[in-house]
Amino acid sequence: MNIATKPEIILTGDRATGPLHLGHYVGSLQQRVLLQSQHQQTILVADMQGLTDNAHNPAKVSSNILNVVADYLAVGIDPDQTTICLQSQLPALAELTMYYSNLVSIARLERNPTVKTEIQSKGFDRSIPAGFLTYPISQAADITAFNATLIPVGDDQLPMIEQTNEIVRKINHLANKKVLTECRPLLSNAPRLPSTDGKNKMSKTMGNTINLGASEQEISAAVKAMYTDPNHLRVQDPGQVEGNVVFTYLDAFHQDKNTVEQLKSQYRHGGLGDGTTKKILEECLQELLRPIRHKRAEYLNDKAQLLAILKRGSQTSKEQTEQTLLDVKAVFGLNIF
Amino acid sequence: MNIATKPEIILTGDRATGPLHLGHYVGSLQQRVLLQSQHQQTILVADMQGLTDNAHNPAKVSSNILNVVADYLAVGIDPDQTTICLQSQLPALAELTMYYSNLVSIARLERNPTVKTEIQSKGFDRSIPAGFLTYPISQAADITAFNATLIPVGDDQLPMIEQTNEIVRKINHLANKKVLTECRPLLSNAPRLPSTDGKNKMSKTMGNTINLGASEQEISAAVKAMYTDPNHLRVQDPGQVEGNVVFTYLDAFHQDKNTVEQLKSQYRHGGLGDGTTKKILEECLQELLRPIRHKRAEYLNDKAQLLAILKRGSQTSKEQTEQTLLDVKAVFGLNIF
Repeated sequence: MNIATKPEIILTGDRATGPLHLGHYVGSLQQRVLLQSQHQQTILVADMQGLTDNAHNPAKVSSNILNVVADYLAVGIDPDQTTICLQSQLPALAELTMYYSNLVSIARLERNPTVKTEIQSKGFDRSIPAGFLTYPISQAADITAFNATLIPVGDDQLPMIEQTNEIVRKINHLANKKVLTECRPLLSNAPRLPSTDGKNKMSKTMGNTINLGASEQEISAAVKAMYTDPNHLRVQDPGQVEGNVVFTYLDAFHQDKNTVEQLKSQYRHGGLGDGTTKKILEECLQELLRPIRHKRAEYLNDKAQLLAILKRGSQTSKEQTEQTLLDVKAVFGLNIF
Repeated sequence: MNIATKPEIILTGDRATGPLHLGHYVGSLQQRVLLQSQHQQTILVADMQGLTDNAHNPAKVSSNILNVVADYLAVGIDPDQTTICLQSQLPALAELTMYYSNLVSIARLERNPTVKTEIQSKGFDRSIPAGFLTYPISQAADITAFNATLIPVGDDQLPMIEQTNEIVRKINHLANKKVLTECRPLLSNAPRLPSTDGKNKMSKTMGNTINLGASEQEISAAVKAMYTDPNHLRVQDPGQVEGNVVFTYLDAFHQDKNTVEQLKSQYRHGGLGDGTTKKILEECLQELLRPIRHKRAEYLNDKAQLLAILKRGSQTSKEQTEQTLLDVKAVFGLNIF
């Protein structure tokens, strides 16, 4: 991972629209555990952003807030090192969004490639909720409110960084001095983990993910149903490793890279059955997820503690973000009291 | 005026983008002075809405906030009867706007006739700032935050009431109970006062308005330049009263309706010069504006007092609007602390 060595202000987060899964673990959670000791890291539980396309089913968001916090703690995110806060507890984020909205045109929002793709995939077209089209402005509010300098992202989210920095430059230009700080992306080197069916995007409704809180039986069933090489019909036949989800997961999760390379070689030559590779993968995932599931359940058993952690982090974040709001209001001459 | 007799919660306000003028006096200020003793009235100084099309020239807004408050007080709005508050001091309004934005589509916003007209007149097209296209959502946040039941509007603003009530119904439907209250328009019976040039919309840059703080000389010059009947070349000629701005202003401001009718009759028959009608109108406007100008200047001489009034009203309004915010957050399940 391309982690900067000097301390940075890192903002990261998740839409609270479902429990976190192995894709999050590989794509961001492991990195956050590493980053927290070196940097000033804040994780935003993005409940308001989660509502931008779930306003008519808000329980999808509200019921997942504490799940997501429990996921964080279970994988080793330490609330004494990382500030964990809730977006809807930070009014300055909404206020900054309002101010920035006057600096970004509808045409600019419609050109955002990430939003374009999401509009298509959700079938929104012009029926897109205003809050969904404008969420890149809200993300810019999140990032700048914390004066974040480094944003862990996938390459599909680079347009968000660009949009944020455009707003930063406009505010600084209006102020004729540096008020806000531009941010840089921290691109993850971890390849994107495929869904267990090897085809679709990971989604709870597709049942093609393995949640961090998955039971032993769920893990077992998910691995058994995993996509391999459809042409690898008999054990003795040569099989294909590329696009074989079992091997991608072994690459991601098996501790011993040599063992994985030997398995790949044997699979390619023939003589290694999918039952065997799946058994090896299942053991490895059961071992990884057993302590996480256990801790997660413990945390969820003590919701008062989860709420206290979220409240404490939100209070710290409230003070930080309101300072930025005051600075931005001053740019517009609205620091009148 | 079609003023309801039972006490209502009234929300009204002005974009703080310039000092108020005779058009505001006739169209809304007089009515507010009447309403304040019977109803619970709040006036919102809409600085954030003023920025939606002035973000690159924010001083146009910030420099006019206290001017507008002084205008209110000078015409007789009593801060002990009417709550005067500043939009940017009420974070709940921005937060409500974010929640409501998820319930309104871009297509719906683009169909709003008022916004359509304004987009055309400002030449925005797709370069329209996001904050400008979405300002009807922000207005719905303003209205509902105060649980306002009665909104004084011109008929061109009826689409705003409709948009607000659509959001109210969606929130109540989601909650499966009444959380927000629908509002009704209070249409002013006063005809719209034309600009002094009789052609364009009143605007500071066109120099075709008479501000409440206009000096004697400014009033005199504005009346002298006023549009009359371009075909009324000689005193003895018959003249036209309809579309003659001097007579429209006499109708609006002269205390003695009989005198105005006699003047009209004489003008129609011939024998009454524009110099004479303008002299009568000028006297009448000088008399109306002299005490207003005087009080306005006194208030502006004591900015600390103006700020204190605005701060007190904003504090009262903050408590009211945050209660509504809590109610709406509960609908989305986000009342978790």
